[in-house]
Amino acid sequence: MSERFTEILRAASEPSWSDAVGHRFVKELFAGSVPDAVMARYLIQDHRFLDSFLILLGAALATADTFEARLRFGRFVGMVSGEENTYFLRAFQALSVTEGRRAADPDTQPTTGFKAIMREAADTRSYPAALSVLVVAEWLYLDWASRAPQPLPNNFVHAEWITLHDNPNFRGFVDFLRTELDRVGSAQADVCRDFFSRAAALELSFFEAAYTT
Amino acid sequence: MSERFTEILRAASEPSWSDAVGHRFVKELFAGSVPDAVMARYLIQDHRFLDSFLILLGAALATADTFEARLRFGRFVGMVSGEENTYFLRAFQALSVTEGRRAADPDTQPTTGFKAIMREAADTRSYPAALSVLVVAEWLYLDWASRAPQPLPNNFVHAEWITLHDNPNFRGFVDFLRTELDRVGSAQADVCRDFFSRAAALELSFFEAAYTT
Repeated sequence: MSERFTEILRAASEPSWSDAVGHRFVKELFAGSVPDAVMARYLIQDHRFLDSFLILLGAALATADTFEARLRFGRFVGMVSGEENTYFLRAFQALSVTEGRRAADPDTQPTTGFKAIMREAADTRSYPAALSVLVVAEWLYLDWASRAPQPLPNNFVHAEWITLHDNPNFRGFVDFLRTELDRVGSAQADVCRDFFSRAAALELSFFEAAYTT
Repeated sequence: MSERFTEILRAASEPSWSDAVGHRFVKELFAGSVPDAVMARYLIQDHRFLDSFLILLGAALATADTFEARLRFGRFVGMVSGEENTYFLRAFQALSVTEGRRAADPDTQPTTGFKAIMREAADTRSYPAALSVLVVAEWLYLDWASRAPQPLPNNFVHAEWITLHDNPNFRGFVDFLRTELDRVGSAQADVCRDFFSRAAALELSFFEAAYTT
């Protein structure tokens, strides 16, 4: 049996992938010991992707080669655009992060890089390219979140950030994304490897940046 | 006060627009007297746009110039991709349209034209171009549906096709689309007028085709 294309991509993205999944931020998150200042910096930056993330999802929806995939992206886009997920707002409140602070903090370099790679992948109008960035953004998070020991930390700011990335819906979406990239990726293997590896490196530097003042 | 850009586009699309809004199909729909064979042909063809419509919506989402617009498209995409709207399936059942028939009927020329113009507008990567086709597809339907006299026909196949295109949510989405095109369209007025007028002409020929065997 041949190896899944997404496994090959992941192996090619090492050591970034494993360094990200095993990062100090993840360890402290599991222990509920991420300092508030770090968590605040991290979430302020993470929240800034939503716009570029929607651009990337829109491009994937528009370039997907099957109707079924389009419907799947469509439902996910609806969920991401909905108002039901109030985690960020509740977390910012718990961390005393004001609207002013959120607006004033400049983008870190990894944030700028992430926004750029999402738009770059969208601009290619290549479904495999868009998938490569999406797979990293979602699968890498599932990978670390699914390793969380029980019980989860008491602080919801930590616990919910884990369960948001390790639940049946999220797992199903990652399965879908990987299956799609396994199916269409090898026709553009170099493009996929390039986007995948750069995205994995950005995930690692994104965790790093939360510890840098 | 200057005229709204979308009003100028609508005027430029005459007589197609008014001929579509006042078409025999609409009059018979209001009276509940569309022959079953016509309604079946019409719905079989209409149902085939969903895939191209999602491509167009994905392109609008990806090219919109504000985060707020992106969220709005995202929620609409989620609704369109959801399974909650069972109208088509119930209507096909009521009209005894089998899966086999739905698959076997060839695309009519207006259907081919609609699929093509939706993908063409998506391919331009121009937000105003995507909006121009979307505004016709949604506003023209609101325009005729909002003229329906009360009471609506008893047959749900007719009545629901009206209320699907004249309800507060749909009206709100049409308002949003028009406001967006009013805001960004004049910078690409010629492109918008071209897409808008061709789309309006296709709406008219789409109604016509339902009466052609």
